[in-house]
Amino acid sequence: MPTTRSDCTALDAADALAHARARFALPDGVNYLDGNSLGAVPKGVAQRVAHVIEEEWGRGLIRSWNAAGWFEAPGRIGAKMAPMLGAAPHQVTITDTISINLYKAVVAAVRMRPDRRTIVAERGNFPSDNHIVDSIAETFGLSVRYAPAGAIAATIDRDTAVVELSHVNYRTAEIQDMAATTAAAHAAGALIVWDLAHSSGAVELHLDRDRADFAVGCGYKFLNGGPGAPSHIYVAERHHTHLQSPLTGWYSHKAPFAFRHDFERADGIKAMLCSTPPMLSLLAFETALEAYDGIAMSAVQAKGRALGDLMIKLYDERLARLGFGLSASRDGARRGNHVSITHAESYRIMQALIARGVIGDFRAPDVMRFGFGPLYVRFVDVFDAVEAIDDIMHKSDWKNFAPPESGAVT
Amino acid sequence: MPTTRSDCTALDAADALAHARARFALPDGVNYLDGNSLGAVPKGVAQRVAHVIEEEWGRGLIRSWNAAGWFEAPGRIGAKMAPMLGAAPHQVTITDTISINLYKAVVAAVRMRPDRRTIVAERGNFPSDNHIVDSIAETFGLSVRYAPAGAIAATIDRDTAVVELSHVNYRTAEIQDMAATTAAAHAAGALIVWDLAHSSGAVELHLDRDRADFAVGCGYKFLNGGPGAPSHIYVAERHHTHLQSPLTGWYSHKAPFAFRHDFERADGIKAMLCSTPPMLSLLAFETALEAYDGIAMSAVQAKGRALGDLMIKLYDERLARLGFGLSASRDGARRGNHVSITHAESYRIMQALIARGVIGDFRAPDVMRFGFGPLYVRFVDVFDAVEAIDDIMHKSDWKNFAPPESGAVT
Repeated sequence: MPTTRSDCTALDAADALAHARARFALPDGVNYLDGNSLGAVPKGVAQRVAHVIEEEWGRGLIRSWNAAGWFEAPGRIGAKMAPMLGAAPHQVTITDTISINLYKAVVAAVRMRPDRRTIVAERGNFPSDNHIVDSIAETFGLSVRYAPAGAIAATIDRDTAVVELSHVNYRTAEIQDMAATTAAAHAAGALIVWDLAHSSGAVELHLDRDRADFAVGCGYKFLNGGPGAPSHIYVAERHHTHLQSPLTGWYSHKAPFAFRHDFERADGIKAMLCSTPPMLSLLAFETALEAYDGIAMSAVQAKGRALGDLMIKLYDERLARLGFGLSASRDGARRGNHVSITHAESYRIMQALIARGVIGDFRAPDVMRFGFGPLYVRFVDVFDAVEAIDDIMHKSDWKNFAPPESGAVT
Repeated sequence: MPTTRSDCTALDAADALAHARARFALPDGVNYLDGNSLGAVPKGVAQRVAHVIEEEWGRGLIRSWNAAGWFEAPGRIGAKMAPMLGAAPHQVTITDTISINLYKAVVAAVRMRPDRRTIVAERGNFPSDNHIVDSIAETFGLSVRYAPAGAIAATIDRDTAVVELSHVNYRTAEIQDMAATTAAAHAAGALIVWDLAHSSGAVELHLDRDRADFAVGCGYKFLNGGPGAPSHIYVAERHHTHLQSPLTGWYSHKAPFAFRHDFERADGIKAMLCSTPPMLSLLAFETALEAYDGIAMSAVQAKGRALGDLMIKLYDERLARLGFGLSASRDGARRGNHVSITHAESYRIMQALIARGVIGDFRAPDVMRFGFGPLYVRFVDVFDAVEAIDDIMHKSDWKNFAPPESGAVT
């Protein structure tokens, strides 16, 4: 029997995380399935930022670097989110962007394996990860061996300095086995850098248990930190005494206010900071994290998995026969928090969906991606999205929209 | 005859920029002379950021990358501030932090002079500039020759790839002759990277006329962009086709939404971007710039110079005999927008000043620095600050404050 809207309403009624939706300021008339690109606004963020501007910056002025705790914010917020990564708190800090943090992490790792000449990275990873890896390889005279995620472990050898790959793929949402791939890297004497862009805030992570060396993630996707929210970086404690980041700004100095000519590296994770962080964006991120207060990441992952399972079931029932393809694992245990559906006209179909208030995103050349912000997306939202796609195809609405312009933001 | 408070009130009454003070939200009971560390809040910033959070992020969600102009913001804001730098608009963008931009600029410059083995940099520059230069030199196998600012031109030779120095020194406020030092670098075939941290928004700049190659600056000092506001970077058009930044994030890709495995560098100044910018901080900065609307940088520099001249006159009249020293040029044409005064007990004297609501900053080991946000500081504020110092010394107030702790934020 095909799935009905009532079935989905019943799933929502039974959802242990349903209460979390009230923690967000969601606009009327929008079915938002793009929290994997930009999370919705958690309540409290607007108020916090207004306070930072009017009171801390406005009245406190320069004094707020001490009095309002600005100076210590990167480490304080890192410690707050560390449990979401399965990490002891002193190993995480919040700074810069994910590409810049990836650059620091890969360079630091390469410098710990000076006798090895190869970086192993994932072909099919988010392209800018590869651009950063290529840039580092060129600078340090290394070569890069690209392999599909499933073949990474077999590609690592005794010449591999560093392995870099995503834990959850940005298209397929396939989850890599962090423990196994990390063990394979370590068995060959290599270090590993994990990209958590589509993992943090979406799935359970056990960086410490799985023996990750480095990891970087995004603040603006599932963590709802706001557009361009600062990134997080994790470094396992065992590497804290050797951290040679190339970005030796004053925040990574042991005595930043001594103004010494010579650089003396800060201890621990502070070595991965660089310079004065964008406080409005950083403190917005801190408040945004409160949306996760009291919620276990196991429950978050289970909710996302159930939403994805429903999407795939509805795909089978209603979309497969309309010429769509599925670019997502059917194994929920190996799938992160989005489902990608392919179609030759995906761009125009997504435009038609957005015109109806159903917001996912398009990834060239042919992917419609639907992400499930696990704290606010309902089962009925997934049903309504599939129903809208079905209706658009039957009415050929999508033909009203132009094909993509080259270079457009999509 | 010694300068009186009435003399200063008269100067304020005659000040052509006096009206600009109303563009700022300044707290009562504070005499703020630290706008060179963190500028005051321009009116309109709180409202803009609230709009960005509630409307653009909250209602627009992912659509705001196009609809609200987020994606183009770095270049749009760069073009808006370019005239303040004496630059044609397509050569400036707003991104990342000043240390990260310095890293990109120096690496890009080094790569344009592959046969040369030396970087010439300023001893006495803000230390993190030197840390970044040292880091690059180590990575690229170069050596660094440090020289005092006045000896930089004479230190450049045919082996110099890149010259890096500050236009306005962070302690002494001494202004370097940009045209002359740049010409000296070019005469030897070297490129030059200018640090504008204490110049942008404070003094007249003519980057195009003076033939600067690269420049980086701060958004949170005289430009009032808020704590940790994003930095600006300038690259002269003649270098736009060779810009090899090492931070090859997706914002520096020619087709960021094509998701190609291979990196194809964006044209022009976009090559110096890296990845998704912190939009709350970036758009706060955009609104903050409006405080300069309709005001010529020549008038700004003249106002700052007059405030500094007054400070030095009052120093001569009242402070020199109390054991203070002056660490600032008496030649107003060669002095940026702050005055540094030295004393063995500067840290504790500054604490006593702050307790009275007069806010400057301390720079180890012995400098009290007073910066003149030229759009909001009045002549009478300078008078009141000197009077407070005089009074603190006579009453020995400063002895109530403890010496600095190591590592404290000051």
